[in-house]
Amino acid sequence: MQNFMYNTPTQVFFGRGVEKEIGPQLKARGYKKIMLHYGGGSIKRTGLYDKVTESLREAGLDWIELGGVAPNPKISFVRECLKICRKEQIDFILAVGGGSVIDSAKAIAMGLANDKDPWEIITGGKMPEKTFPVGAVLTISAAGSEMSNSHVITNEEIHMKRGLNTEMVRPVVAFMNPENTFTVSPFQTGCGIVDIMMHTLERYLTPDEDAILTDRIAEALLVSVKEAGPVALKNPEDYEARSTLMWASSLSHNGLTGCGKTFGFTVHKLEHDFSGVFDNIAHGAGLSVLFPAWAAYVYKDNVKKFARLAEKVMDIPVGEDEEATALAGIQAFKDYFRSLGMPVTLGELGVPADAYEQIANLTTANDTKKVPGFRELTKADLLAIYKLAE
Amino acid sequence: MQNFMYNTPTQVFFGRGVEKEIGPQLKARGYKKIMLHYGGGSIKRTGLYDKVTESLREAGLDWIELGGVAPNPKISFVRECLKICRKEQIDFILAVGGGSVIDSAKAIAMGLANDKDPWEIITGGKMPEKTFPVGAVLTISAAGSEMSNSHVITNEEIHMKRGLNTEMVRPVVAFMNPENTFTVSPFQTGCGIVDIMMHTLERYLTPDEDAILTDRIAEALLVSVKEAGPVALKNPEDYEARSTLMWASSLSHNGLTGCGKTFGFTVHKLEHDFSGVFDNIAHGAGLSVLFPAWAAYVYKDNVKKFARLAEKVMDIPVGEDEEATALAGIQAFKDYFRSLGMPVTLGELGVPADAYEQIANLTTANDTKKVPGFRELTKADLLAIYKLAE
Repeated sequence: MQNFMYNTPTQVFFGRGVEKEIGPQLKARGYKKIMLHYGGGSIKRTGLYDKVTESLREAGLDWIELGGVAPNPKISFVRECLKICRKEQIDFILAVGGGSVIDSAKAIAMGLANDKDPWEIITGGKMPEKTFPVGAVLTISAAGSEMSNSHVITNEEIHMKRGLNTEMVRPVVAFMNPENTFTVSPFQTGCGIVDIMMHTLERYLTPDEDAILTDRIAEALLVSVKEAGPVALKNPEDYEARSTLMWASSLSHNGLTGCGKTFGFTVHKLEHDFSGVFDNIAHGAGLSVLFPAWAAYVYKDNVKKFARLAEKVMDIPVGEDEEATALAGIQAFKDYFRSLGMPVTLGELGVPADAYEQIANLTTANDTKKVPGFRELTKADLLAIYKLAE
Repeated sequence: MQNFMYNTPTQVFFGRGVEKEIGPQLKARGYKKIMLHYGGGSIKRTGLYDKVTESLREAGLDWIELGGVAPNPKISFVRECLKICRKEQIDFILAVGGGSVIDSAKAIAMGLANDKDPWEIITGGKMPEKTFPVGAVLTISAAGSEMSNSHVITNEEIHMKRGLNTEMVRPVVAFMNPENTFTVSPFQTGCGIVDIMMHTLERYLTPDEDAILTDRIAEALLVSVKEAGPVALKNPEDYEARSTLMWASSLSHNGLTGCGKTFGFTVHKLEHDFSGVFDNIAHGAGLSVLFPAWAAYVYKDNVKKFARLAEKVMDIPVGEDEEATALAGIQAFKDYFRSLGMPVTLGELGVPADAYEQIANLTTANDTKKVPGFRELTKADLLAIYKLAE
C-alpha cells in the first residue's frame, strides 16, 4: 500500500427532500449572499429551482443568479461570472446541476479567492493557496465533482480542455436527492454510468498489487453501478437504482477508490482532448470509446489485474488462460457500454481519422510529453490506441 | 436506501513516516499549545513518543503532556485532565494511542468546549453545541475513534460505561502509520479485528434490503479484514496486513459502511455493560462472545441477510436451505474469532452466571427499556442471549 492522504470534508445530505436542508445549512455556516449557478434552465422545468430558492428564502438568505453554464464549461463564461460575483460581493457559490455547473462554480471560486485570471490558475502551474466556498445540489450522477478535488474547464479559443486538482475545490456541502436525476435522458444517464465507472477503473487499473481493501471497495462499486445502470435506463424513476448511481458518483471520485494506490487517470487525459476539440462530444461518450481501446493496448503490463477485473466485475469464468480472461473482460466492458446506448468506436463518436494527428499532438504537446499512468504513452502510442478504437 | 447524512471531515495522513507531518499540519491549522494525551507509556518504549515530540518541536509548537489513560477510560481521569487543560489554556488535544486514548481526548474536548461536567455531557441527554479540536496518532487498529463521531467513557463509581455520538467529536486530523501497530500484542490484535468487523456487522445486519452499494462495500471490508487478521497474527510486522487492518478500522466506523441503512449497534450496547462491570474485559473480547450468541438469537428476522453474509464473507456454499447457510455463517464467525485466540463463551470471558441479572438490569434500566436495533430486545431476551453464549 502506497502512502496516501485522504480528505473528504464535503458534508453530504442524501435522500428524498434534502432540498429543505439547503437554506438552514448555508445559514448555519454563516453565509449571507449566495450566487446560484445553474445550466440551461432544466431545473426550472423540473421544479428544483423553486425548491432551492424557497429554502434560501425561508432561511432569510440573499442571492443572485447566474444560469447558462454550457456542457464542457467555458473559460469565457467563467470570466464573465467572476466579474459579476466580485461586484456583487457574494460569499458562497451554490451550484445546482451536474459536473459542468459544479466545475464552473469551482473555477469562479478559485478566481474569487486568488484575484487571478482563472485560466492562468488552471494552467499556470503554480498552485493557489486560497479558496472560496462552493456547495452543490446535484442533478446528474456522473462527474463526482460534488465531492471531488478536481475541476475541468475548456478554453474554447484554443480548443483546450484542462483540469486542476486541489483540495481547495472540494465543495463544503452537497445536497443529493436521487429523485432530481429521474429526468436525466437515457443518453446522459449512459454517459454518467461510464464516467462513474471510469473514475474507479482509472484508480483500479494501476501497476499496484497491494491495496486489496481499496481494490475490493472498487469492485463493490463497479458491480453495483453495472447492475443499477440498465435498471435506471429501463425505469428512469427507479429510486434505488438512481440512488446507487448517485452515491457511487461521489464515492468513485472523492478519493476512496484510490487510497494507497498509484494515481493514473490516463483515459481521462486522452478523452479531454477529444471533447476539447469536438464540442459536441460528451465526456462519458468519449470515455466509452477510448477505454476498451486503451485497455486492449496496455493490458499486458498487468494481465493479472485485468483478469481479476474480468472475474470480479464482469463475471468472466476464470480459465487457465489469464490473458484470455483479461481480454474477455475488456470485451465485456465494450459490450456493456454498447448495451447502455453508448458509442464504442471513434466513427460512432463522429471523429474523422484526419483529426487524429491534431488530437494526439494536443495531448502530448506535439510529441514532447508522455501521458503518465499505467504505462507512459507517447504520441505514437496514442495513434495506435485511436486505431484500435475505430 | 434510507436518507442519510455523511460527514467525514477528518484529514487522514496514512503510511510510513507520517509522524513528520504532525508538527507542520498542526501549525498550518493555527494551533500553538498542544495537550499530548497518551496511555501507559508504550509509546515511549516504541520510540513513537520521540518522533511525535520531535515533530512538534521542529514546528515550534508548545505542549503539555497528560499520559496514563487506562483501557476503558475513566471519567475521574477525564475530570482531572480537564482541570489541567483549562488552567494551561491549551488549544488542541493530540491523542497518541488507540480508542481509549482518543475517546478520553474527545471527552476532555467536550468538557473544555462546553464548561460542563463531562459525565453530564455524555449522559445528560442534551446535546452540546460547541466543540474543541482533537487529533489522533493511531497505535492500535480497532475502535475507529480516529474518524468516528463516537466516544465511550466508563464511570467507575457506578460501574457504568456509556457513549455519546455527535459530529462534534470527529478528529480534525489523523496520522496513521501501520508500523506503529507492529508491537500490538496478539490478544489486542485479535480484539481489534473483532471490533473492526463488528463496527461493520452492526451496520450490515439490519432489516434493510435496499442499500446494495453500502452492503457490498461492507462485504469488501469484512473479507479484507478476515484475510488480513491471521497474517498479522502470524507476522506482526507484515506491513500490508497491518495497513489493511488500520485503514479498515477507520472506514468501518466513520459512517461509510452504514450509508443509507438503519442504525442498530445492539451488540455494542450489550457489550458495554460487561466491560463496564468487569473492568478486565476487553471490549473486543466481549464482542467476540456476544456476537455469535446474539446472531443465533435474532437471525430468523432476516434469514436472507445472514445467508448472504455467510456466502459473501465466510465462503459458505449456498445450498437450498437458506437457514442452514445463515447458521453455518454464524458458526464460521465463531470459529474465526476462536482461531484469532479470542474467547467465544462467557465462561472464557470470566463472567459468572450469577452476574447475568445485574448486567441485564443495567442494559435495560431494570427491565424498563428495550435495546433498539435489528430486533428490540427485552431483559428476558438478553438473559436468553447470555445463555446461548455460555
